[in-house]
Amino acid sequence: MEYGECVSLLMGQDNILVLSHIRPDGDTLGSGAALCSALRRAGKTAYIYENPEITDRYLPYVRPWFAPSGFVPDYTVAVDIAEPGLFPLGYAGTVRLCIDHHPSNARYAADLLLRDKKSACGEIVLELIKLLHGAPDRAEATLLYIAISTDTGCFQYSNTNSDTLRAAAETLDAGAGIHELNQRFFRRVSKARIILEGMIYSGMTFYRDGFVAVATVTNDMIAAAGATESDCDDLAGLVGRVEGADVGVTIREQDNGDSRISVRSSPAVNSSDICALFGGGGHKMAAGCTLHCPPAEAKRRLLAAVDKILG
Amino acid sequence: MEYGECVSLLMGQDNILVLSHIRPDGDTLGSGAALCSALRRAGKTAYIYENPEITDRYLPYVRPWFAPSGFVPDYTVAVDIAEPGLFPLGYAGTVRLCIDHHPSNARYAADLLLRDKKSACGEIVLELIKLLHGAPDRAEATLLYIAISTDTGCFQYSNTNSDTLRAAAETLDAGAGIHELNQRFFRRVSKARIILEGMIYSGMTFYRDGFVAVATVTNDMIAAAGATESDCDDLAGLVGRVEGADVGVTIREQDNGDSRISVRSSPAVNSSDICALFGGGGHKMAAGCTLHCPPAEAKRRLLAAVDKILG
Repeated sequence: MEYGECVSLLMGQDNILVLSHIRPDGDTLGSGAALCSALRRAGKTAYIYENPEITDRYLPYVRPWFAPSGFVPDYTVAVDIAEPGLFPLGYAGTVRLCIDHHPSNARYAADLLLRDKKSACGEIVLELIKLLHGAPDRAEATLLYIAISTDTGCFQYSNTNSDTLRAAAETLDAGAGIHELNQRFFRRVSKARIILEGMIYSGMTFYRDGFVAVATVTNDMIAAAGATESDCDDLAGLVGRVEGADVGVTIREQDNGDSRISVRSSPAVNSSDICALFGGGGHKMAAGCTLHCPPAEAKRRLLAAVDKILG
Repeated sequence: MEYGECVSLLMGQDNILVLSHIRPDGDTLGSGAALCSALRRAGKTAYIYENPEITDRYLPYVRPWFAPSGFVPDYTVAVDIAEPGLFPLGYAGTVRLCIDHHPSNARYAADLLLRDKKSACGEIVLELIKLLHGAPDRAEATLLYIAISTDTGCFQYSNTNSDTLRAAAETLDAGAGIHELNQRFFRRVSKARIILEGMIYSGMTFYRDGFVAVATVTNDMIAAAGATESDCDDLAGLVGRVEGADVGVTIREQDNGDSRISVRSSPAVNSSDICALFGGGGHKMAAGCTLHCPPAEAKRRLLAAVDKILG
């Protein structure tokens, strides 16, 4: 479908609900809310689905567009939802139009606007808004910047291309506050998190000439840093930053004295095979398991397992 | 000076040396080497100064443009050099043209192409190259992407604007390999760098209820981490990650016992004003100065200066 056809289709509808996918990210939420805003500016009644899984990170930006309880849509649009399994409960059969950028899109909707070269759905919604109104307003620009920047790791992931950067540039011209948004979504972390990262980095150890990196996170470290659970998000990703380390192991002490293990690896090593030796599993490049022993002992056993797998 | 005038000026010269500043970063090196390449494409003999402080991070990209020993330039151009104090030894009086984006530019050169709204000199050189050749070639595009992306923290720093993103988009269209470059410059770091970051984070101190964060980097820390100069790139950015810290001060011990200071701030505070108290300068949100004392004493003086500016 062409962008213009999609705009015509939407202009022929009213009482529109915009759906986001389960475990919603910045793209599904930002694109959906921006589309909702643009539809309202065009005189439509439009809301976004109050996705119960929206995190604090995105809530302030999307809350203004939530559907009131009891709203019964006449037309439902899915944004950034590749397949019915990603629909919020009860919505899979209701969607009439799907706007998406996933090459794997399951073509479940009667009408589909698919642009699979776009790094984010935000870029597609930007095109729709330009056709509708010439340019996004400030709120839409902010939402679209969130969509595009979060889906590309602030332009660092390999899906970033020159169109991505130009689309983001348009959102800045339309008033997206890049400084505040980058600070909030990419740059700033709590003091406790910084201190905890410092401890983790300082205590990182390396084996097999740096091919294996191990990070340990104990309850004492967390207490000393004054960190809460929300400061501990994706600690397993830190060890993956190290140049030359194809295997990154993170050992997290549990309250009951067990050790929770996360393994991250390059495609050259199968993380899942390592964790399977301890009854765990996962994906080839990201797996986990739990050992019923303290971190120091867990580290010894893990390194022995890595040696066994790598030979 | 207009871009066209600058191009005319350059076309009237030959045997051109392009200078980078001391402690060269990606912008001074990338912009300078790209300009050098474009001048050669225009039939000129042009080289860049073999800056002895170039780190391994940048060396492979700029080495092809080094001046041979014994090269005697007829015309010298400074790129991204705000003031004579930042010149490599012996070059301060020789510069005829300065291409720069620092608002604090000391106007030391007979001719000055200054665009102080540009986030990187790379954007200015891109405009010159477009006038000269229509578009950068692949090598120039790579160098300009390095210049622009490193000076903006991969588009995360507050100096990023829509023109920055459009300029970067043009370098991608001209063949810059964004995936490889982002991996190399932003995603992966050396083991020594990780250990050093750990020490810096662990040693970070906070003042004025966390409004001011101070990081200190001593020669002992660098030695203990096994870090080389290339592991120390943009250490000043680390302190800016802390939530709630509007002012981030990084103190780097120098071999002669001096302390090199970098200040990063939110728009609420003028970094340049703080550094000006010690004879330094820079931008509103990123500035620097040198204090002739050890780090502990430098920290005391800096905090007093911050108190004076903040009141």
